[in-house]
Amino acid sequence: MAGNTYGNVYKLTTFGESHGEAIGGVIDGCPPGISLDFKAIQKELARRKPGQSAIVTQRKEDDEVQFLSGVFEGKTTGTPIGFIIPNTNQKSADYSHIKDIYRPSHADYVYQQKYGIRDYRGGGRSSARETASRVVAGAIAKQILPDVKINAFVSSVGDIFIDKPYQALDFTLTETNPVRCPDQATAAKMEEYIRQIRKEGDTVGGTVTCVIQNVPVGLGEPVFDKLHAELGKAMLSINAVKGFEYGSGFCGAKMKGSEHNDAFNPDGTTKSNLSGGIQGGISNGMDIYFRVAFKPVATLIQEYDALDNSGNIVKMQGKGRHDPCVVPRAVPIVESMAAMVIADFYFLNNIIK
Amino acid sequence: MAGNTYGNVYKLTTFGESHGEAIGGVIDGCPPGISLDFKAIQKELARRKPGQSAIVTQRKEDDEVQFLSGVFEGKTTGTPIGFIIPNTNQKSADYSHIKDIYRPSHADYVYQQKYGIRDYRGGGRSSARETASRVVAGAIAKQILPDVKINAFVSSVGDIFIDKPYQALDFTLTETNPVRCPDQATAAKMEEYIRQIRKEGDTVGGTVTCVIQNVPVGLGEPVFDKLHAELGKAMLSINAVKGFEYGSGFCGAKMKGSEHNDAFNPDGTTKSNLSGGIQGGISNGMDIYFRVAFKPVATLIQEYDALDNSGNIVKMQGKGRHDPCVVPRAVPIVESMAAMVIADFYFLNNIIK
Amino acid sequence: MAGNTYGNVYKLTTFGESHGEAIGGVIDGCPPGISLDFKAIQKELARRKPGQSAIVTQRKEDDEVQFLSGVFEGKTTGTPIGFIIPNTNQKSADYSHIKDIYRPSHADYVYQQKYGIRDYRGGGRSSARETASRVVAGAIAKQILPDVKINAFVSSVGDIFIDKPYQALDFTLTETNPVRCPDQATAAKMEEYIRQIRKEGDTVGGTVTCVIQNVPVGLGEPVFDKLHAELGKAMLSINAVKGFEYGSGFCGAKMKGSEHNDAFNPDGTTKSNLSGGIQGGISNGMDIYFRVAFKPVATLIQEYDALDNSGNIVKMQGKGRHDPCVVPRAVPIVESMAAMVIADFYFLNNIIK
Amino acid sequence: MAGNTYGNVYKLTTFGESHGEAIGGVIDGCPPGISLDFKAIQKELARRKPGQSAIVTQRKEDDEVQFLSGVFEGKTTGTPIGFIIPNTNQKSADYSHIKDIYRPSHADYVYQQKYGIRDYRGGGRSSARETASRVVAGAIAKQILPDVKINAFVSSVGDIFIDKPYQALDFTLTETNPVRCPDQATAAKMEEYIRQIRKEGDTVGGTVTCVIQNVPVGLGEPVFDKLHAELGKAMLSINAVKGFEYGSGFCGAKMKGSEHNDAFNPDGTTKSNLSGGIQGGISNGMDIYFRVAFKPVATLIQEYDALDNSGNIVKMQGKGRHDPCVVPRAVPIVESMAAMVIADFYFLNNIIK
Repeated sequence: MAGNTYGNVYKLTTFGESHGEAIGGVIDGCPPGISLDFKAIQKELARRKPGQSAIVTQRKEDDEVQFLSGVFEGKTTGTPIGFIIPNTNQKSADYSHIKDIYRPSHADYVYQQKYGIRDYRGGGRSSARETASRVVAGAIAKQILPDVKINAFVSSVGDIFIDKPYQALDFTLTETNPVRCPDQATAAKMEEYIRQIRKEGDTVGGTVTCVIQNVPVGLGEPVFDKLHAELGKAMLSINAVKGFEYGSGFCGAKMKGSEHNDAFNPDGTTKSNLSGGIQGGISNGMDIYFRVAFKPVATLIQEYDALDNSGNIVKMQGKGRHDPCVVPRAVPIVESMAAMVIADFYFLNNIIK
Repeated sequence: MAGNTYGNVYKLTTFGESHGEAIGGVIDGCPPGISLDFKAIQKELARRKPGQSAIVTQRKEDDEVQFLSGVFEGKTTGTPIGFIIPNTNQKSADYSHIKDIYRPSHADYVYQQKYGIRDYRGGGRSSARETASRVVAGAIAKQILPDVKINAFVSSVGDIFIDKPYQALDFTLTETNPVRCPDQATAAKMEEYIRQIRKEGDTVGGTVTCVIQNVPVGLGEPVFDKLHAELGKAMLSINAVKGFEYGSGFCGAKMKGSEHNDAFNPDGTTKSNLSGGIQGGISNGMDIYFRVAFKPVATLIQEYDALDNSGNIVKMQGKGRHDPCVVPRAVPIVESMAAMVIADFYFLNNIIK
Repeated sequence: MAGNTYGNVYKLTTFGESHGEAIGGVIDGCPPGISLDFKAIQKELARRKPGQSAIVTQRKEDDEVQFLSGVFEGKTTGTPIGFIIPNTNQKSADYSHIKDIYRPSHADYVYQQKYGIRDYRGGGRSSARETASRVVAGAIAKQILPDVKINAFVSSVGDIFIDKPYQALDFTLTETNPVRCPDQATAAKMEEYIRQIRKEGDTVGGTVTCVIQNVPVGLGEPVFDKLHAELGKAMLSINAVKGFEYGSGFCGAKMKGSEHNDAFNPDGTTKSNLSGGIQGGISNGMDIYFRVAFKPVATLIQEYDALDNSGNIVKMQGKGRHDPCVVPRAVPIVESMAAMVIADFYFLNNIIK
Repeated sequence: MAGNTYGNVYKLTTFGESHGEAIGGVIDGCPPGISLDFKAIQKELARRKPGQSAIVTQRKEDDEVQFLSGVFEGKTTGTPIGFIIPNTNQKSADYSHIKDIYRPSHADYVYQQKYGIRDYRGGGRSSARETASRVVAGAIAKQILPDVKINAFVSSVGDIFIDKPYQALDFTLTETNPVRCPDQATAAKMEEYIRQIRKEGDTVGGTVTCVIQNVPVGLGEPVFDKLHAELGKAMLSINAVKGFEYGSGFCGAKMKGSEHNDAFNPDGTTKSNLSGGIQGGISNGMDIYFRVAFKPVATLIQEYDALDNSGNIVKMQGKGRHDPCVVPRAVPIVESMAAMVIADFYFLNNIIK
């Protein structure tokens, strides 16, 4: 397996299975002399962790990060930051019944085919638990970029969506409800819907919108490593993501050029921002915004058909604790990946030294 | 500028401005002993080149590729394949009027801000002419993977779209019309619409859908370098792309898990394919399909407001030859990037040696 | 700080300071299904660890590796192998006297200048303790390549050297003496000399020779990433190394072509092997051998002049436990880096899948 | 074949066989706004080219570089610099006799084994002609770093060597003799010896020493990507190189720590410089110096035994034009690779923006 590293200059390498000793990571490329706010890092982890509200999985995991290196007397030293998050809630016995079973729309089958072996406990490496390590690296990236404002929020759950442009929203309200939707009326509907879905033992998809503000002009490489191409890859690397669009996105594909072009103001800003803050792959100083589509979680608390390793279709009964809708917990992950991409380009483009 | 290389094992590095001596590239990682079909490569370039039909830009460019290395007696030697495509249609004088002008929704402004200098002739490096080099590398990738079938086609232009699943289409019809839409009735409407848009001096966006068939199980790296994350990055790196979705895509975000899960057949294939041929970032052997959104081209043959380098908004008159709709010419580019991504994973995952 | 990752396919990322919580690493790219021999890994660490004999530093460190991921039921799963080696012998107080001191020929000064901060305890990240993580990755690499024989040994200490070609040596004798010199008579002289140097509170340099056997034809990339160029970089990345030569090495620079060329046997082997098993950057199937020069350790148990951070030259007294000669402990590190380079090319060149 | 790219930020990718259409390269990562001195680039190529004096090969090659991109109105634009050097002296017929022949100590045999195909004309990709592309990139790197002084020279030919420290040499004399040895008396002896070797149809090895001055403190990454490790890899990647040592080098391995440590001056400089300007992998501001060993060229103008592809040992007669001693022409190559390494770290370590 390759591909466990993200970034060019600000680089995160992650390791760990959901039911092994610990998950963790190494951040290489963090500048020296940054006073880390450890509480802020832990707070981001709390936004991602299971059991945080009634509408997410009720598994209890503490997700406490331990830093092993790269920090001395509270400051980063410029050396690699190694960290682990122990897996305190391992109940391997829970998973023995799926040892020889491939669940539909999970990674079980492809892992077994690709590697000939897999840690079947809780999804092993394919578990979204891996994203906790991303949140650590993202939380540090945010601290490196204090001026950049990164706000993600749930913009739709199933068919329920916020019917306003992001400019009309108050991001300080995002954390006031368990859905992480800053439009309170919509949030209430979403929450109600998720509770109903949970009762059905079913799951539902949704979208997360992310807005990045105060980014200077000039981030991004204009050919293959366009800023939005890296953001897209980063988002598509998150578990359960099916789509990415920025600026006008798929709607832009229906428009005419005369409607879509963003006219300049004399200071180089633009009157409209269908470009989404990126032109020719390079940030133009306007708000960057994008939307990420998450499919419904594949784990249901219902009876379902699975495949066993002898080629039989077998009836399985989903049980235990599951996430009826993943997007509330995905919000800090989207922000973290965004922060990592932006930090990486800051270094790559020499804006931070 | 970094980021002029794509791929990990099958790597393409491109160079060249639209109005310099030549554009070109270097392919590193092509296996030895492949008998290249040079006509097939040239044919792919012809699908991308300007002037190929009445509904694309009428600029005349021959786009003839010259191979400088890596091929001996008609076969690849395993050494880097250097190639150039001379710029035979350079009319620099045409562009002197935009030397100090930043056109709206072009890369002019951000290039100038980022680099402090730019080759303003025809967009320079930000010109989509760069994608011709990608088509060369993609055409070779296709020849390395003879069993894999990669078919892209125009699935929408403005509000006109194919109202059928891709399984109902006959891909052999794609090249029978200038729009590259395999649904003939829809193609006719699209062509008519593009002709009208061209008369208005306007442009319109559209989408390209791509279907990749006969991919074995096991391509892709399951964490950051998921197969769909790389496909997404590759597509988002194409000029004018605003969004990417695969499988159920943004629609999947509205669905329930009980609707979305792809039930297995006993042989490991699935009854439905909302997963889009990829689970947990790894190909599962089913068809891979995705959709790419292109914004309308920013160059209009109309009067428009631009910014000059003294901070004045100035009236400009678009003139000359432009693409009223970019998607017909984008089809071979989408296929080329897809072929490069698939070839890269074939090598990375050791399926081809 | 960048550059904490080694390898292209079989990749090791290390982290950790000598006096932090733990050092460790992540191995990405290890193939699945390998039954790991944990005792063999621990044995390699024991060859590197302090306190193993009377002629090395008497610090006591257990150097016990803990695997956190990537191994399931005793076998590798193909996922990243995260591991830590706790620092059990941290005595930070010992180092407070050098907080503001730059010791000569150490990395203290350059770290402080480059990063503006450093973990001064025991050298921090610049400590050779980091190489313990390399030994873990190297020990696993050896297990992946059971047919390849990698034997390093001490070939000189100060002016004392083995006066025989490596073909005349019995590598099974290397571990029979604390110097790790397979020529017993020379080993005795070296040991005696190191004891004398230790009494003087001084240190002495030496060389390590490494022989790699049973490597197939074809490893290495012939231009920038020549097999010997990667071996050279790997060796030069080890603390205290000042030079690298392979095959005829510096002696070859004095020879005539008529003496130096290796005549072929009909089966493609060569009668002589001044090429050192590598031609044009690619292994030719003959033994690969190279020699690595280590400078004397800079830490002396004598009075010495140091620089303080106010620009004063100050008298310091070396004390405590030091290595009078580093080469005996360097032997497993040289082997480990060699194993990692060879394993990496095995994968890169698709010989192992 | 991989490994045709050198560098992390200032990156050169080369392509081309000695007897193809052209060799060339792409430089990615050159900063914008540099006024290129094209004559200086051509002058460096002239230092490397065949036929420049009576003691090198008498082949005539113009080695004229043509820039295709990345330069606009005489200045770099920050976009990739594509360039070619046409092969004007192709006489393929000369090489037909070695089509099925593997010459001793050449890359013929390993290429054929590794790739199953090779361009046998003049060594193809394994020809040192590839290094002309490196000289172009190195000449540009030198122009990016005007304050850094890089001086390489021939320090030995066979047993004849300069018996002085480099500080006693006047580098302005290097180009006054065809050997490129700044010590005139030694140069005369070397030249005489090379003429004699040429008459014998034989070849001889030698060493090149390189001194890099005015490098600031802080270049290099302290673990795997140490400054000297990268310099070592760069030098070992040059054709015919067998060894690399910096600072005290192999001599340092014979010394005691009390002799080897470089005592500080109050300003952070050191009284001696056995460290060779690098401590802990990071430049300390002192002169960087290193020595590179080149084996004798394998091509002799004598009868020799070769292997044919049927496993027969066959008598061959070397003929034509050859280099009796490669080191005079290697001097600009060593400087070029050194310039590329230093430039790369300047960018990586954010000293140039």
